[in-house]
Amino acid sequence: MTHEFDTVIRHGTVATASGTMDADVGIRDGRIVALAESLGRGREEIDARHRLVLPGGVDAHCHLDQPVGDGLRMADDFLTGTRSAACGGTTTVIPFAAQARGQSLRAAVADYHARAEGRACVDYAFHLIVADPTPTVVREELPALIDTGYTSFKIYMTYDDLKLDDRQILRLLAVARQHGALAMVHAENADCIAWLTEALEAAGQTAPRHHADARPMVLEREATHRAISLAELVDVPILVVHVSGREAVEQIRWARGRGLRIYAETCPQYLFLTAEDLGHGYEGAKCVCSPPPRDVANQRVIWDGLADGLFTVFSSDHAPFRYEDPQGKKPGGQEVAFRHIPNGIPGLETRLPLLFSEGVRTGRITLEQFVALTATQPARLYGLHPRKGHIAIGADADLAIWDPDRRVTVRNEALHHAVDYTPYEGMTLTGWPTTTLVRGQRVWDHGEFLGRPGDGRFLRCGRPEMARP
Amino acid sequence: MTHEFDTVIRHGTVATASGTMDADVGIRDGRIVALAESLGRGREEIDARHRLVLPGGVDAHCHLDQPVGDGLRMADDFLTGTRSAACGGTTTVIPFAAQARGQSLRAAVADYHARAEGRACVDYAFHLIVADPTPTVVREELPALIDTGYTSFKIYMTYDDLKLDDRQILRLLAVARQHGALAMVHAENADCIAWLTEALEAAGQTAPRHHADARPMVLEREATHRAISLAELVDVPILVVHVSGREAVEQIRWARGRGLRIYAETCPQYLFLTAEDLGHGYEGAKCVCSPPPRDVANQRVIWDGLADGLFTVFSSDHAPFRYEDPQGKKPGGQEVAFRHIPNGIPGLETRLPLLFSEGVRTGRITLEQFVALTATQPARLYGLHPRKGHIAIGADADLAIWDPDRRVTVRNEALHHAVDYTPYEGMTLTGWPTTTLVRGQRVWDHGEFLGRPGDGRFLRCGRPEMARP
Amino acid sequence: MTHEFDTVIRHGTVATASGTMDADVGIRDGRIVALAESLGRGREEIDARHRLVLPGGVDAHCHLDQPVGDGLRMADDFLTGTRSAACGGTTTVIPFAAQARGQSLRAAVADYHARAEGRACVDYAFHLIVADPTPTVVREELPALIDTGYTSFKIYMTYDDLKLDDRQILRLLAVARQHGALAMVHAENADCIAWLTEALEAAGQTAPRHHADARPMVLEREATHRAISLAELVDVPILVVHVSGREAVEQIRWARGRGLRIYAETCPQYLFLTAEDLGHGYEGAKCVCSPPPRDVANQRVIWDGLADGLFTVFSSDHAPFRYEDPQGKKPGGQEVAFRHIPNGIPGLETRLPLLFSEGVRTGRITLEQFVALTATQPARLYGLHPRKGHIAIGADADLAIWDPDRRVTVRNEALHHAVDYTPYEGMTLTGWPTTTLVRGQRVWDHGEFLGRPGDGRFLRCGRPEMARP
Amino acid sequence: MTHEFDTVIRHGTVATASGTMDADVGIRDGRIVALAESLGRGREEIDARHRLVLPGGVDAHCHLDQPVGDGLRMADDFLTGTRSAACGGTTTVIPFAAQARGQSLRAAVADYHARAEGRACVDYAFHLIVADPTPTVVREELPALIDTGYTSFKIYMTYDDLKLDDRQILRLLAVARQHGALAMVHAENADCIAWLTEALEAAGQTAPRHHADARPMVLEREATHRAISLAELVDVPILVVHVSGREAVEQIRWARGRGLRIYAETCPQYLFLTAEDLGHGYEGAKCVCSPPPRDVANQRVIWDGLADGLFTVFSSDHAPFRYEDPQGKKPGGQEVAFRHIPNGIPGLETRLPLLFSEGVRTGRITLEQFVALTATQPARLYGLHPRKGHIAIGADADLAIWDPDRRVTVRNEALHHAVDYTPYEGMTLTGWPTTTLVRGQRVWDHGEFLGRPGDGRFLRCGRPEMARP
Ligand SMILES: [Zn+2]
Ligand SMILES: [Zn+2]
Ligand SMILES: [Zn+2]
Ligand SMILES: [Zn+2]
Ligand SMILES: [Zn+2]
Ligand SMILES: [Zn+2]
Ligand SMILES: [Zn+2]
Ligand SMILES: [Zn+2]
Repeated sequence: MTHEFDTVIRHGTVATASGTMDADVGIRDGRIVALAESLGRGREEIDARHRLVLPGGVDAHCHLDQPVGDGLRMADDFLTGTRSAACGGTTTVIPFAAQARGQSLRAAVADYHARAEGRACVDYAFHLIVADPTPTVVREELPALIDTGYTSFKIYMTYDDLKLDDRQILRLLAVARQHGALAMVHAENADCIAWLTEALEAAGQTAPRHHADARPMVLEREATHRAISLAELVDVPILVVHVSGREAVEQIRWARGRGLRIYAETCPQYLFLTAEDLGHGYEGAKCVCSPPPRDVANQRVIWDGLADGLFTVFSSDHAPFRYEDPQGKKPGGQEVAFRHIPNGIPGLETRLPLLFSEGVRTGRITLEQFVALTATQPARLYGLHPRKGHIAIGADADLAIWDPDRRVTVRNEALHHAVDYTPYEGMTLTGWPTTTLVRGQRVWDHGEFLGRPGDGRFLRCGRPEMARP
Repeated sequence: MTHEFDTVIRHGTVATASGTMDADVGIRDGRIVALAESLGRGREEIDARHRLVLPGGVDAHCHLDQPVGDGLRMADDFLTGTRSAACGGTTTVIPFAAQARGQSLRAAVADYHARAEGRACVDYAFHLIVADPTPTVVREELPALIDTGYTSFKIYMTYDDLKLDDRQILRLLAVARQHGALAMVHAENADCIAWLTEALEAAGQTAPRHHADARPMVLEREATHRAISLAELVDVPILVVHVSGREAVEQIRWARGRGLRIYAETCPQYLFLTAEDLGHGYEGAKCVCSPPPRDVANQRVIWDGLADGLFTVFSSDHAPFRYEDPQGKKPGGQEVAFRHIPNGIPGLETRLPLLFSEGVRTGRITLEQFVALTATQPARLYGLHPRKGHIAIGADADLAIWDPDRRVTVRNEALHHAVDYTPYEGMTLTGWPTTTLVRGQRVWDHGEFLGRPGDGRFLRCGRPEMARP
Repeated sequence: MTHEFDTVIRHGTVATASGTMDADVGIRDGRIVALAESLGRGREEIDARHRLVLPGGVDAHCHLDQPVGDGLRMADDFLTGTRSAACGGTTTVIPFAAQARGQSLRAAVADYHARAEGRACVDYAFHLIVADPTPTVVREELPALIDTGYTSFKIYMTYDDLKLDDRQILRLLAVARQHGALAMVHAENADCIAWLTEALEAAGQTAPRHHADARPMVLEREATHRAISLAELVDVPILVVHVSGREAVEQIRWARGRGLRIYAETCPQYLFLTAEDLGHGYEGAKCVCSPPPRDVANQRVIWDGLADGLFTVFSSDHAPFRYEDPQGKKPGGQEVAFRHIPNGIPGLETRLPLLFSEGVRTGRITLEQFVALTATQPARLYGLHPRKGHIAIGADADLAIWDPDRRVTVRNEALHHAVDYTPYEGMTLTGWPTTTLVRGQRVWDHGEFLGRPGDGRFLRCGRPEMARP
Repeated sequence: MTHEFDTVIRHGTVATASGTMDADVGIRDGRIVALAESLGRGREEIDARHRLVLPGGVDAHCHLDQPVGDGLRMADDFLTGTRSAACGGTTTVIPFAAQARGQSLRAAVADYHARAEGRACVDYAFHLIVADPTPTVVREELPALIDTGYTSFKIYMTYDDLKLDDRQILRLLAVARQHGALAMVHAENADCIAWLTEALEAAGQTAPRHHADARPMVLEREATHRAISLAELVDVPILVVHVSGREAVEQIRWARGRGLRIYAETCPQYLFLTAEDLGHGYEGAKCVCSPPPRDVANQRVIWDGLADGLFTVFSSDHAPFRYEDPQGKKPGGQEVAFRHIPNGIPGLETRLPLLFSEGVRTGRITLEQFVALTATQPARLYGLHPRKGHIAIGADADLAIWDPDRRVTVRNEALHHAVDYTPYEGMTLTGWPTTTLVRGQRVWDHGEFLGRPGDGRFLRCGRPEMARP
């Protein structure tokens, strides 16, 4: 007996960013080759009755095995990170190849490839982080890398070892414009943070909760306005990453109203955490990330922005550090001043279930918006469309089959990253992926991780259409 | 020999609002039943190589055979109107069943059905126009009609025979909220228009171009702000129709920034015409519509709004009056004062080619945005999704096959409406539909209209998800 | 022995809107004729050591003996009203001559003169209220009255017997523009109020506190935007009276930012009361006024507007009704539904002490701003400058001598109006006028009212410079 | 025969910021001691019939004899600068004592005193320029200087030898807050200027007109927003100096609307020059100043801001360099690239006549606003009130007697500075001061300069009330 397809997913409700349909999905050679009311036999058949068939998530902002110096270490490498992604319905990740000061950008990329090689379980592309925009980097390395599939890079306006001054940013934005890359901006004013940190420390206020006091909204707003202005001067679109609340949102809306193409990303922590979560003794260190979570009123602003199209992409900003770990949230085994706590929280695996449960199920956003924000638009934004993030003929068969009614109480022990906590411990969510396929292969199925290290492939990104000048 | 499909469209590039794919489209019983790299035989085969296969357009704002009183008459009825639509790639129209003062709303609907019956060549739904919100209308007729598939209605803030006062608007918005309908608002301040018209007439300024002087942006802005405020008070989404320029756009952006769901529509006349076009003697009457076209700076604002998601829908506002006609733009055969010129311009057939050529081909918007604005989102907004406006398994096979490279110089003689002019005469456009299918049947094919009066079916609209309170 | 002056006020600190000085003030024939370090003898001498010598207040918005129909009656006529003013440091009042529908405007003015004649204890001018803008009123009466010293008029957007529609407003604004008068606008949307009132009554929510529910901020904002738009269309400045909070303020700021001359007034009730004050059973009726007081956050916005120049004038909007009175807050002796409670609160006498104590003494505004807001700018705005509202050579000797340190607990029994309550009962204030002079004559001195009915003179207002088109 | 007064100015129209009066002004011992309808004899009598008697101007932003390095030299020292001021009706100047990097702030002040000593012809105070905020400066020198009468300082966000980074600015703002000083901010983004300058030079675009291209509005707006944000963080008022147009104005309005105390200054060059004036060959160097003049639309925005209270102060920003001078606009005798042209234009003498003629005479602002903007408010803003900037008993008799009708065509040869050009050459103005008195002494009278070097006294400034935290 012959099989028309390698796999057929039957009777599911297939959702794309523009609609849902009841259809069978036919997969051959890792790609979607047919969508129909009824398809012929597949070698493998998956019953998706009462299930949603969604494009696998594209997590366009996560940090895996990124060198962080100072005796610290990220908990997740490409293996545990992509495993965690797969188990949460995500089939593509775009972590960062970070240049160290003094390092060649090419070398940074080569090093990062070495870290991914043989370990990734889902497909991956790289954003670059340019921390040292020397003439060589600006004129040679960066353009060459853009040409060969590294078409986005992150600019930091804060963090001592990463931050660029305005002139460096202008130079990089000019490269983005000339070569059609997309610049992502981490918008916080470094000097303000330093000044506040100094003041807080002078006052003995060093507990984790003061991390939020050292990074109030006003300094994110300032940096956002500045980034917008620099982009306006260069006449190039940018993406403001991890937008946390009202004042930054207002700047972005204002820029859009003036006809500027300023894109925006937000993350689960700005919907589900508040500064209060940094407040319970040293445990608050678990929620130390930047920008910090704000308050309930700001959460509402972020929800509004997701619903009305302000945000193009919803990412995890997964930056994994173990809590009980001298290389993690307790550097050297100590409860340190907030300034020394490594920034970041885990979120690769919970990103989609959180938004599905609290966004789609509550009616705050539609299922189509969910797909757009978590898969289609990130793929598009970073030049991976139409191969990734979409269910369409010819696309990679990266799919997540969801049980929309399954109730799950989040427990870190049930997650698949290498971090020893989740900030969402104990939340009960409705909806979870039961099966994840990467290029047609099951990597997660009914509670079992089936992926194989090294099966994940590197993706060269095309030039983002949204970055066209 | 058996045929798996009634029709197969082969080798085309299929575009939806969320992406494009190279795929064959299989049609059976008027519906799309398969999308695949390669499909089996169809009884009929259409070669779409080098062609785009798009969802047929949904023109969510047009006026056909609408009684207008005063010895005037719309040039297009359901036959010529839907014929024109089909030849321009549009497969669904939503004209207005307009209540006259003193008339029952049900009677207005019944009358309008009679006008459509046996004449429509593409499918159609009805918006209601409520001009007389009596207690019976508000409490009985309107809720009952919403329940039976008339789920949107237009509120006029101007025109003597249609305009409602704020209290009437509030009552209708409350019905929209309670019954899940979508209110569309024509936002111009009637009193301001009357006052300016009086002043212009007193000064002898009655030429067509003074129509624009009588309706400056400020009064559209005022009415837009007021409509937003009334909607905010009732806590219900609304759609502001035919937004013409910057000041109205700014109000809508401001409302969105405050978390209000204010949707917006715009039309070709605000992209391609300016107030100058009202200015060449009495010929300017051809471009008299309300709100009037503005200027080039305002056109840019509208383009920005299309590109960045401000507008949900792009409609024609086709309101057809013949120029050389005593029942049209020369009432009683006279060149009359602007106040007496019937408002409206034709646009059903040119809507899509104009936006495709000047939007998609120039790169101002993507092909996906084109599909979204002209088909998917209007269908969704008015409760016709997923049946209309989308290419997906199970959807009606309403399709337009486009030659994206065909250059066409717009000539009214080549159009299929019953109007004796087009405001776009002489424009050269790139891209035009070569074939249009309604539920799998060709109605337009390589220059020939093949539709049959009465083949178009009435569509009951579902409750618009965007109108959920 | 001869006297150079009728009166000399010695050793006081004299404050104007632009500074303070230690100076003697010499008065002759009711006017200020000298300011000097040291002046010669006066027939009368007033020791103002440790006292402030301020221009007497100009209360540019108060209602005295205004016919209100329905068996209701204002508690204060020109005698008690101006007496109360004098005892609170106010030396000029500008109440309203209100036209009834069907009445000639001239007749309304004549009637109002009759009410003032022989009773006023301080000087007075009249604003007009145009409730019936017939062609005669618009073309003849109003222009003639403007010419003869009635240069401002109030337009109501609410109240059934006063409200004008937009077209009537446009006509009146055109008169203001043509004849150089200043239009004052009461900005609340009548239809929204009616709709909400109906809904509240249908739900049995008729207690005084629901007065505030029937007039939420959004409808004041809407009317403010509309008034701005109408003024923009006519190209004429306007004054928005009794602005109550953030959303209206934002509209006014927005208009100013666009170069429009939109002036604004606020009143004590928006600084010192909140909607809570309407909430204690029927006693809340004492604080029923329109717009209603808002909340503490809105109070802060009003304070900011006073401090930064948004507001040009601070008035009482004194609209006096007795509480225990069948002609007052208990119509016919009943506790009625909020809709039937006469709108208004008393405030002529407390206006200045409230702002002085909580504004100047706390440092929220400067003494110069206090003088500007309460005396100089109102006089200027309504064409009474330089005669009133200022301490300068040649100006009327209308002066209030303040003890800036005197602590007074507000008790209605100590006030001089004819109302049986004050909303500020029990507040302890710092600073109170000890002596008030009108054209050099003491009318209030150390707790004694010395004014004489009929001594107050009618003032013809010049054309307001701020209303110049 | 005895004289009651040293000087009496008779029959003039005396104007203050809050009104005008017909009054004689009596002066004794250099102070105003009487204002009256008619005063006794003065040893000296000045007939001011048909004349305006105004407070002498306070020019709160000018540069005199300020070391500029690089072989350049300012054309005006304290003698020629204050002479020019006096002849233009200005009686107080506040130039800058500028710290060089590495220099003690005290030393800078001492040096600057030496430059003024024996040369100033009108009274003067000093702003500080802090270019090197070392711990000593921040903790000791600056607080001590504030305590002894140097209560304002300028922060530069641009110019290589002056600019501070955000952290330095924060430290200085904290000093301002703690010690009650007023920080003035020059808001242009240095990095943007450098980047644009580099690009322009690379393209060979070095003519003076490219100075404007290197400093577009967007970078002034960015720096303005940033300055506002830093002030907001520290919670301290600031003054944004020399605001040039719409985008910066919008930021300031936005900040005010949020309750922040952001004050603003503008200058004649933003009302009377445009970028075009930099465009006529090398002569454009005469108008090279920063920010550069913009265009006519921006001029209107500045006029609106003067009329509606946005601006607190109108200064000259006199920064005098000779055109035909190797130490001036042609460094080393060469026509240099715009980057090397010293920034600044002369304006001390023309500031008041320009604003009087084009502001007061045209009706754009009132005479009272003129006085406020040019004298009263600058004095107040910098702690010189009530001694300076006001006509009041006890104030210094610093007066300018104006012939409001005198028509003067501006000719540099008729001015009294040491610069060899004026940007306003050839403009015909209406109104000019005929006589200027400093502390009662004539320094300018009917075309003759009568001042004596050294008569001008140093003024210790009080703590600015507007800078109260
Ligand atoms: Zn980041
Ligand atoms: Zn990150
Ligand atoms: Zn319409
Ligand atoms: Zn229409
Ligand atoms: Zn009112
Ligand atoms: Zn009132
Ligand atoms: Zn400067
Ligand atoms: Zn300067």
